[in-house]
Amino acid sequence: MTEPSRVLNPLLRQRLMSADAAAALIRPGDNVGMSGFTGTGHPKAVPAALARRIAQAHRDGEPFKVGVWTGASTAPELDAALAQVDGIELRLPYQSDPVCRERINAGRMEYLDIHLSHVAQFVWSGFIGHLDVAVVEVAGILEDGRLVPAASIGNNKTWLDQADRVILEVNAASPDLEGMHDIYYGTHLPPQRMPIPLVRPDDRIGEAYYRCDPAKVVAVVQTNAPDRDTKFSLVDDASRRIAGHIIEFLQHEVKKGRLPRELLPLQSGVGNIANAVMAGLQDAPFDNLTAYTEVLQDGMLALLKSGKLRSASATALSLGAQALAEFERELDFYRSRIVLRPQEISNHPEIVRRLGVIAMNGMIEADIYGNVNSTHVHGTRIMNGIGGSGDFARNAWLSIFMTPSTAKNGAISCIVPMASHVDHTEHDVQVIVTEQGLADLRGLSPKQRSQLVIENCAHPDYKPLLRDYVRRALESGSGRHTPHLLQEAFNWHLQAQAGERMGGLPKA
Amino acid sequence: MTEPSRVLNPLLRQRLMSADAAAALIRPGDNVGMSGFTGTGHPKAVPAALARRIAQAHRDGEPFKVGVWTGASTAPELDAALAQVDGIELRLPYQSDPVCRERINAGRMEYLDIHLSHVAQFVWSGFIGHLDVAVVEVAGILEDGRLVPAASIGNNKTWLDQADRVILEVNAASPDLEGMHDIYYGTHLPPQRMPIPLVRPDDRIGEAYYRCDPAKVVAVVQTNAPDRDTKFSLVDDASRRIAGHIIEFLQHEVKKGRLPRELLPLQSGVGNIANAVMAGLQDAPFDNLTAYTEVLQDGMLALLKSGKLRSASATALSLGAQALAEFERELDFYRSRIVLRPQEISNHPEIVRRLGVIAMNGMIEADIYGNVNSTHVHGTRIMNGIGGSGDFARNAWLSIFMTPSTAKNGAISCIVPMASHVDHTEHDVQVIVTEQGLADLRGLSPKQRSQLVIENCAHPDYKPLLRDYVRRALESGSGRHTPHLLQEAFNWHLQAQAGERMGGLPKA
Ligand SMILES: CC(C)(COP(=O)(O)OP(=O)(O)OC[C@H]1O[C@@H](n2cnc3c(N)ncnc32)[C@H](O)[C@@H]1OP(=O)(O)O)[C@@H](O)C(=O)NCCC(=O)NCCS
Ligand SMILES: CC(C)(COP(=O)(O)OP(=O)(O)OC[C@H]1O[C@@H](n2cnc3c(N)ncnc32)[C@H](O)[C@@H]1OP(=O)(O)O)[C@@H](O)C(=O)NCCC(=O)NCCS
Repeated sequence: MTEPSRVLNPLLRQRLMSADAAAALIRPGDNVGMSGFTGTGHPKAVPAALARRIAQAHRDGEPFKVGVWTGASTAPELDAALAQVDGIELRLPYQSDPVCRERINAGRMEYLDIHLSHVAQFVWSGFIGHLDVAVVEVAGILEDGRLVPAASIGNNKTWLDQADRVILEVNAASPDLEGMHDIYYGTHLPPQRMPIPLVRPDDRIGEAYYRCDPAKVVAVVQTNAPDRDTKFSLVDDASRRIAGHIIEFLQHEVKKGRLPRELLPLQSGVGNIANAVMAGLQDAPFDNLTAYTEVLQDGMLALLKSGKLRSASATALSLGAQALAEFERELDFYRSRIVLRPQEISNHPEIVRRLGVIAMNGMIEADIYGNVNSTHVHGTRIMNGIGGSGDFARNAWLSIFMTPSTAKNGAISCIVPMASHVDHTEHDVQVIVTEQGLADLRGLSPKQRSQLVIENCAHPDYKPLLRDYVRRALESGSGRHTPHLLQEAFNWHLQAQAGERMGGLPKA
Repeated sequence: MTEPSRVLNPLLRQRLMSADAAAALIRPGDNVGMSGFTGTGHPKAVPAALARRIAQAHRDGEPFKVGVWTGASTAPELDAALAQVDGIELRLPYQSDPVCRERINAGRMEYLDIHLSHVAQFVWSGFIGHLDVAVVEVAGILEDGRLVPAASIGNNKTWLDQADRVILEVNAASPDLEGMHDIYYGTHLPPQRMPIPLVRPDDRIGEAYYRCDPAKVVAVVQTNAPDRDTKFSLVDDASRRIAGHIIEFLQHEVKKGRLPRELLPLQSGVGNIANAVMAGLQDAPFDNLTAYTEVLQDGMLALLKSGKLRSASATALSLGAQALAEFERELDFYRSRIVLRPQEISNHPEIVRRLGVIAMNGMIEADIYGNVNSTHVHGTRIMNGIGGSGDFARNAWLSIFMTPSTAKNGAISCIVPMASHVDHTEHDVQVIVTEQGLADLRGLSPKQRSQLVIENCAHPDYKPLLRDYVRRALESGSGRHTPHLLQEAFNWHLQAQAGERMGGLPKA
């Protein structure tokens, strides 16, 4: 064991033990609140040790499952390890792990897909049961017992507050983020709630460390392991065109006086397209930008570096290895420009509305009337979860959803007659973008929207079929507000489920 | 013309004219912001005069349509009168008028169904076009030109601010509500927004009168006409049982320590069931209740009278004739207990979240996974609109949706395999109630929810069919997170469209 130089509190030094010993303190049926958000700040050793313990229990014929609550997605050493051994009874609130996904869709694991801003309040209020254990990665422990947060905050404050027992992982490989965090301790349950005093995206309203009752800490485990190396693909042509359409639209809004020249705080979803949009902003004629978002990815870091982006607020730093190296080289530069907050604050409806966030999120499909599916492939199979997209879309100034117009080499149209699952309703979606173009749905009735979505966003292969659907739905006369032919609304999804090309189109 | 004793400002007295003369100031193509919210506070004379003008223009072969923007629903002398003559190009944001509904569903009128909390901000920001004229009912005009609001506030502040030309209707029959209103003038566009300083449901943060630039006022019309006499049916058995389930649930939450004894501020939707729930609270073991809602109906007035309800905040008073008489008899009693606010404040996400509102809204149907349809019959025909239900459901402490388990004498199940339109997603619905029982969906995965919704909420006639659907969907294996059979998900709606009983059940 290395010198525990990051564990300064004497009492907590007495709790140092191995990951296996710590995992032995977790019991079958426990609800476990783990740190971790988009592959950073998750515990690196205890979940794997727990998975080994569970596997052994199962070999011994003993049932052993736990509830796994996190900030958002984690990494294989947590989600995959535990799912692989069928150790998860229920997972919440967001995951993007292939093994978890397979288990959930096979009906072997329950998944609770809730808004990220709801998690803390649901736990405080006892809506989703009792939290037994917290397993939280930190960057260090101060002399007085306060904890230095790691690369993501997520729900850690809540886990540390609410759990009966706390297991800390102190990661020697965690970058030195001291002072970058802003842990707000001013939340209350109604009727005691007061306004949250945040009025600029980079305001600091809290403390730089977590509070934690040392008496609850049952184990301290030392690790030395990097976060997930989140790899972004090179910006492809479709993403570049999506970014281009969004930037053109934002310029237009500025020209019309509907957005200030420095725009409004940007929220940018997870994944490659979101990253590409940030890359696109690098060459766009905007300066002094700000971000109020969930996760800070490579593209946003580059915008900070170039000075295009003045400051960024998030709950997680999720960088590829190269961007992380750049970040560590210029730590003080970034320290003065980045604020990391608990996810109930990064995603808070009150703040998102007040700041007038411009929300840009990915989706699986949109229908011609502007309903968006972010979670379910063909209405039944979960992909990841809604994450924070609903927190932002619902209360944003402008809510933009983006996707390539097709998936699976053109066999699937991401613009469909009827979304097979709805996560963002027609009331919450203002703009839809694909590489084909952008549909600004503000002020339009469903019929008017359908025209724009088809003409601007659908892939040319699917346009005639979509036009035909609307025409025949209108003619059927069953209702001309939102014309639909319910008997065939999901035909395309059924074709895709059967491995055919949507719309009966010939194989490409 | 009667003595204009309610028009004290000398300049505005000079603008007194007939409704026909005022209507002549409205031009084809104008967007007209009208006052009115759930049948109260709408202009009583100018819309009808405008309808006559439009009818004449159409007889003369001249095109004449206007955009009609309101607070919410109005009354026949506005919505029906204008729709009847095909005078409405586009209607927003909520209506419940049979003639409008017929026109919209026939494709003869566009309808923009947006969240009530979005309207003001969409207009301030220029998202939905320019407002040409405001036609606003007031109770009086002060010497200095400020306006005494009538029985609803809705978007009036915004219409008066934003319109180029203002037409005032001064209604001598308007009850004396002076001092009951609280018009907040502290809103800004981002990035200038500050916290809204409202922390208790009955806080007053604004002014008792509307400001209005007299130079913009082109007409003042005197009227003497009552508001819509909103008739509530006698509380029927189904409503009584729905109310009973909700009250039992709230008691349970108090016992579990998840709600304070005086509950949290209540929001109650429009219509009979909402009214019945309020009636049910009369005999429930709760005291010192508060309400933070959109519309104050008879049931809530009775709760104020009995002292069960300490105070109520709303944007409209919508009372039946008898309740209105009671209200006017005890004006000072109610004046100290009721606050009427602009709808961007009564429905504001920031406030709804802060106060921890308990939202109770009606619906058309829910599916077994907890998705709620509030607006579209069989996915295509608009009923009314989403109104404020999304504002409340999305940011509430607890979001409850209620409906009888069947409609049309049992031919329609209001619990269906898949909702034919989604206004409130599975992420935003915590509780579903019918006369059969209540399903508390918190903390449950979709499959677990489906069990509870079927067993607790569906009508016995439909339970076996719903169970069978889930079983077969699970067996199909196409996805066991949210099991669906897309090929038959809407069969029941198609049967209903064809005039048959859902599920192929024999005619009752
Ligand atoms: C919707 C979401 C999955 C898209 O992610 P992405 O990385 O941009 O999407 P991709 O285009 O790479 O597609 C992911 C997969 O879905 C498939 N897919 C995409 N569209 C599809 C469609 N319409 N039908 C079926 N499958 C589809 C892709 O083929 C790909 O499958 P593969 O992994 O087998 O190749 C992602 O944005 C998400 O999880 N969103 C919800 C949470 C969220 O928005 N969080 C941000 C808030 S801060
Ligand atoms: C959903 C809503 C229409 C229900 O209203 P209600 O008065 O409680 O409903 P009712 O049970 O009287 O039903 C209204 C009509 O819809 C029909 N209906 C109800 N459920 C139906 C279903 N599942 N399928 C088809 N028709 C249905 C009824 O038969 C009735 O038709 P009729 O007028 O021809 O008799 C109403 O609550 C609403 O408009 N909600 C959206 C706005 C809102 O929630 N505002 C409140 C926020 S403050």
